[in-house]
Amino acid sequence: MNTFGNIFRLTSFGESHGPGIGGVIDGCPAGIVLDTDFIQAELNCRKPGQSKLTTPRKEDDEVQFLSGIYEGKTTGTPIGFIVWNKNQHSSDYDNMKNVFRPSHADYTYQSKYGIRDPRGGGRSSARETISRCVAGAIAKLVLSQKNISIQAYTSQVGSIKLEKNYTQYDLARTEENAVRCPDAAKAEKMAKLIMEVKAQGDTIGGSISCVIKNVPVGIGEPAFGKLHAALGHAMLTINAAKGFEYGDGFDAGLYWGSEHNDIFYNNNGQIATRTNHSGGIQGGISNGEDIYFRVAFKSVATILMEQPTVDVTGKETVLCARGRHDACVLPRAVPIVEAMAAMTILDYILLNQAKQV
Amino acid sequence: MNTFGNIFRLTSFGESHGPGIGGVIDGCPAGIVLDTDFIQAELNCRKPGQSKLTTPRKEDDEVQFLSGIYEGKTTGTPIGFIVWNKNQHSSDYDNMKNVFRPSHADYTYQSKYGIRDPRGGGRSSARETISRCVAGAIAKLVLSQKNISIQAYTSQVGSIKLEKNYTQYDLARTEENAVRCPDAAKAEKMAKLIMEVKAQGDTIGGSISCVIKNVPVGIGEPAFGKLHAALGHAMLTINAAKGFEYGDGFDAGLYWGSEHNDIFYNNNGQIATRTNHSGGIQGGISNGEDIYFRVAFKSVATILMEQPTVDVTGKETVLCARGRHDACVLPRAVPIVEAMAAMTILDYILLNQAKQV
Amino acid sequence: MNTFGNIFRLTSFGESHGPGIGGVIDGCPAGIVLDTDFIQAELNCRKPGQSKLTTPRKEDDEVQFLSGIYEGKTTGTPIGFIVWNKNQHSSDYDNMKNVFRPSHADYTYQSKYGIRDPRGGGRSSARETISRCVAGAIAKLVLSQKNISIQAYTSQVGSIKLEKNYTQYDLARTEENAVRCPDAAKAEKMAKLIMEVKAQGDTIGGSISCVIKNVPVGIGEPAFGKLHAALGHAMLTINAAKGFEYGDGFDAGLYWGSEHNDIFYNNNGQIATRTNHSGGIQGGISNGEDIYFRVAFKSVATILMEQPTVDVTGKETVLCARGRHDACVLPRAVPIVEAMAAMTILDYILLNQAKQV
Amino acid sequence: MNTFGNIFRLTSFGESHGPGIGGVIDGCPAGIVLDTDFIQAELNCRKPGQSKLTTPRKEDDEVQFLSGIYEGKTTGTPIGFIVWNKNQHSSDYDNMKNVFRPSHADYTYQSKYGIRDPRGGGRSSARETISRCVAGAIAKLVLSQKNISIQAYTSQVGSIKLEKNYTQYDLARTEENAVRCPDAAKAEKMAKLIMEVKAQGDTIGGSISCVIKNVPVGIGEPAFGKLHAALGHAMLTINAAKGFEYGDGFDAGLYWGSEHNDIFYNNNGQIATRTNHSGGIQGGISNGEDIYFRVAFKSVATILMEQPTVDVTGKETVLCARGRHDACVLPRAVPIVEAMAAMTILDYILLNQAKQV
Repeated sequence: MNTFGNIFRLTSFGESHGPGIGGVIDGCPAGIVLDTDFIQAELNCRKPGQSKLTTPRKEDDEVQFLSGIYEGKTTGTPIGFIVWNKNQHSSDYDNMKNVFRPSHADYTYQSKYGIRDPRGGGRSSARETISRCVAGAIAKLVLSQKNISIQAYTSQVGSIKLEKNYTQYDLARTEENAVRCPDAAKAEKMAKLIMEVKAQGDTIGGSISCVIKNVPVGIGEPAFGKLHAALGHAMLTINAAKGFEYGDGFDAGLYWGSEHNDIFYNNNGQIATRTNHSGGIQGGISNGEDIYFRVAFKSVATILMEQPTVDVTGKETVLCARGRHDACVLPRAVPIVEAMAAMTILDYILLNQAKQV
Repeated sequence: MNTFGNIFRLTSFGESHGPGIGGVIDGCPAGIVLDTDFIQAELNCRKPGQSKLTTPRKEDDEVQFLSGIYEGKTTGTPIGFIVWNKNQHSSDYDNMKNVFRPSHADYTYQSKYGIRDPRGGGRSSARETISRCVAGAIAKLVLSQKNISIQAYTSQVGSIKLEKNYTQYDLARTEENAVRCPDAAKAEKMAKLIMEVKAQGDTIGGSISCVIKNVPVGIGEPAFGKLHAALGHAMLTINAAKGFEYGDGFDAGLYWGSEHNDIFYNNNGQIATRTNHSGGIQGGISNGEDIYFRVAFKSVATILMEQPTVDVTGKETVLCARGRHDACVLPRAVPIVEAMAAMTILDYILLNQAKQV
Repeated sequence: MNTFGNIFRLTSFGESHGPGIGGVIDGCPAGIVLDTDFIQAELNCRKPGQSKLTTPRKEDDEVQFLSGIYEGKTTGTPIGFIVWNKNQHSSDYDNMKNVFRPSHADYTYQSKYGIRDPRGGGRSSARETISRCVAGAIAKLVLSQKNISIQAYTSQVGSIKLEKNYTQYDLARTEENAVRCPDAAKAEKMAKLIMEVKAQGDTIGGSISCVIKNVPVGIGEPAFGKLHAALGHAMLTINAAKGFEYGDGFDAGLYWGSEHNDIFYNNNGQIATRTNHSGGIQGGISNGEDIYFRVAFKSVATILMEQPTVDVTGKETVLCARGRHDACVLPRAVPIVEAMAAMTILDYILLNQAKQV
Repeated sequence: MNTFGNIFRLTSFGESHGPGIGGVIDGCPAGIVLDTDFIQAELNCRKPGQSKLTTPRKEDDEVQFLSGIYEGKTTGTPIGFIVWNKNQHSSDYDNMKNVFRPSHADYTYQSKYGIRDPRGGGRSSARETISRCVAGAIAKLVLSQKNISIQAYTSQVGSIKLEKNYTQYDLARTEENAVRCPDAAKAEKMAKLIMEVKAQGDTIGGSISCVIKNVPVGIGEPAFGKLHAALGHAMLTINAAKGFEYGDGFDAGLYWGSEHNDIFYNNNGQIATRTNHSGGIQGGISNGEDIYFRVAFKSVATILMEQPTVDVTGKETVLCARGRHDACVLPRAVPIVEAMAAMTILDYILLNQAKQV
């Protein structure tokens, strides 16, 4: 279950403190110019140490491609890649080897496998998302040829929330602040909250919103391959994700049908809808309108304060995490949300191509 | 994409007004006593006409098994089944043949395939969920041997919402009212709202919550096979679903890490957590606590009032639906949520078995 | 594992003496005119009782479509179908309920599942191939739009073997005799042998050859998706198949490289090869030449003579089969080979479409 | 399609002259002691330069593990690995950049993808099998815990063929000669033939046989997951494979049913068969007897003599390969056959576990 996708498929590997994090991308169309600067820039977006809001841990993550490229272009064969782990402080985890960190995956991995790599969370570390960023960046390169764009942004930190719809923000301003929030005033409040929480060794969660533009009509499959189900699945595989909604989402229940229905009209020869409560997907298939959704993230489980817990023998004990950790995962999760969205949309576009005569 | 699951797999077929709705269940363990009364009872839970809250459409859905059973037991070979369509009023849909109903799948199916069965929504009809109920009922039979129980209930209709956690209700009382809500007082209010909405030819949405008990520790797969991602995917494939959250879900962002973390302790030799913000899943793997989640549903798209729309040529027109429709899908969606949960949990239990030496 | 294919997928169900044999075809392109006469004719090719060479068992197999078709065309949604079992003589199998027939699947199914349907071999019966014929016929309808044709024929019965290459026969004459062999003289000898074997209550095997014309260049996938590996897998799933070879097959080892290599030349602007030892596939991908292969079949396991065996408790006993059985499966397996070839080629053509930008 | 397997899955990547050949193994059970000496020894078996029979090309293939291992044991998480390419003479291929080598994959890859890596055959190179050796070695480590052994050997080179059944050879002697043939006299003749062919710049093919012992009863799946179909598929994905047969294979057609049927008897409380024409698999499921099969390989396509061909523009030209090539691929393919068999058997054993309650 370390493979994602049907046609455009990422198989990922790697642990936080092992030799590296990498993957194999299978099913990437041939002839795509591999813009390595772009890919590296995408990867840099997720790396720690970008601002004082994130962990001071330095991870100079550089991707090395291992196959599937010839004279700068994809060849249609699998693209292997690796980001070597450097600057790992495995000793930070010595005291956790036999102890289960609360709300981490230590206990569940140990129970499932009877063994686990405790250094930095091993496979359950958020470093696993590196491979998603790389594959997502390549998916974006393919999608950009089809004029499809994907933009995610932080829409909530703690109780500070963007109240307006994405159409009312200039999403191009997302990268102007360290929180990755297109509303500068809210961003400042969010940043302040994160610093406050951090000062206490604590952590905070929130939500990320994402908008996908120019997906053609007809992408998505009936029944179990609904496009929003694929997007939801993709988002919920991101570490710390707790929920997913698209279109009006959980608020949809508040509307009556007559308010919620999106009325079709003829927009200069193109069928369009006057509203977009549906979030660009109807019956599981894209209708040509903007696709938008929101992902909930919990606060980071690692806090720099004492917590009671148990060790591998079941004995109760007390744990105090050391190390360099994020107080809020949101800003660094923005590129991951985009990467997963890009892979999903591309995969379903390719899948749709397979269904034609 | 009409197949769901990895090991326990349902492949479904059928349209609303075609000969029938059915499916093939592959990977069901052998030797399970097929309690057909139980399966039929599960199916009856989703059928229309159970109360005045739901559509007066009568669908005497009876399942006929076509294979995979010998002397009342599953044989390990594929279980084919069909529920024959009866009592279809295809003429109700004559005026919709060339018109796209707002917020339905008519336009997207037509665009994707260049052809569609317009009678009763064809494949996109909620009758498709019949096959899920049958497969879910069989999954429940297998899970009951492992003492695993699944209980869903209506937790919100419009703005009427259960405020308390599932632990504070007697879920056994869910079936005591037509809304399938364990809080009798709230249920009454919800029913009143539905009748009000219905009187106006309108519709309303809400949310369904679900609790799964006694899932052993260790179910779920790392990375892209996280148990909650599988559950989220499963739920989002249900017609009209708009969102999914587990554990604290979208509220998780409001908690600081020190509040949200679930502290481990030794409960008479068994490791347990003092709280369950995680919703029974940590790092994508079950931790032995109750699994709970919530699914958002929009209002039914078919309303009995005039709506502007376009026809297949793009010409603007006006549509007024006829026929017998639900004003609120929630009560009838409760068994679907349970069915999808049952299939997912069983599938992942079987998958976990495959990973042992 | 009752699903075949990646994009064009058949999920099959059904036992020999259960209600029926059927399946679900998912991923069939939309808009295909469903020529039911053609499909029924294909099905008739495999049915017993066509000549004195085959079993006198009468199986009036008529396919009933259950979904996926609207106004005579495929809609892109799953095509459910069933062929109801009739004329079953289950009592013929009463004496086999607790006995393992030699070289049948009785013992292995019983061991694997702890239960089995003993009537007519249950799921392991050759009646299971009915669903392949139906799906294969539909695949042929799609392929015929691309001018791709598939022709199989009996090339060996016992030691009577066609010595010449397929190019030296008029394959259109295959259906002129009951053996389905394009060489009339050899066909007569084969028929005589089959009657001889049959007279003794015994059975005989042989091989079937198959030629696929007009597959475009580029179909097949690197590494584990090689086209010939997919074809081989497909053929080896047919009951009684014991081997598969393509191009020069097992004889390839006899040639030196300088003899075996297929020299490329320019055939009026189209690259072609002067010989076709490769069998139309190079590096796992079609090269535009004819694809041809051969499948070995063992003699039917059911013989009408006494055989020692054991019962389910392991006690040694003697079995004498009753019932109406084929003395030679070859003639009736010809349409199955074509059906599996059609499904495989179509699946890989659709898969190839998914890999383009 | 660069992923093999259902539960124990290898995803492979890499080209002949790119940075390296590697893969990701997903689904390997946890807690397996990773005997790296054994794995390296398996890898050494396939490498060139082992004897004068094989190419003098030196490939010091050393595997580097990238993930999935902790303190010498598998952790259940994906095992990434790479073998770095060294000693590549890419300039040997300069003259082939724009020319299609006869009976290679140059033309088909170029046609499929519109681009290809021409150095050493790129992805279609036999170096791709390195990743199979590594994964196969790990599968063998797991299987050895279940006492399952796999032994392949060269059974034919050109027209020199082992006439006797595997039971009549001491397979332990396979590694005693460079041909990997358990019959020393035949091995000498085979070696002589290979040297003769090589002296002329030509190549020769043959076949490899394989025996798998101690597979428990019940492994394999009905219909499309028959164990021999999975083995056949696995073998046919190996470069230069042209055919697969198991049990009596293509000779099965010569036997009458009464000769071919394997009679069951009670062998001290264990059901067994007196003969094993079936090759250890009945109805697609293992019956506890030895599994054996044979794989046909064509002669290597690269010959050191002039051959007419065409270039990428379709212009006719003449090619003379340079470089260091095998005159016979058989000896080095023996470990690949074993590796694919090991992966397949382990995968199906794990799959079978998933079907139990």
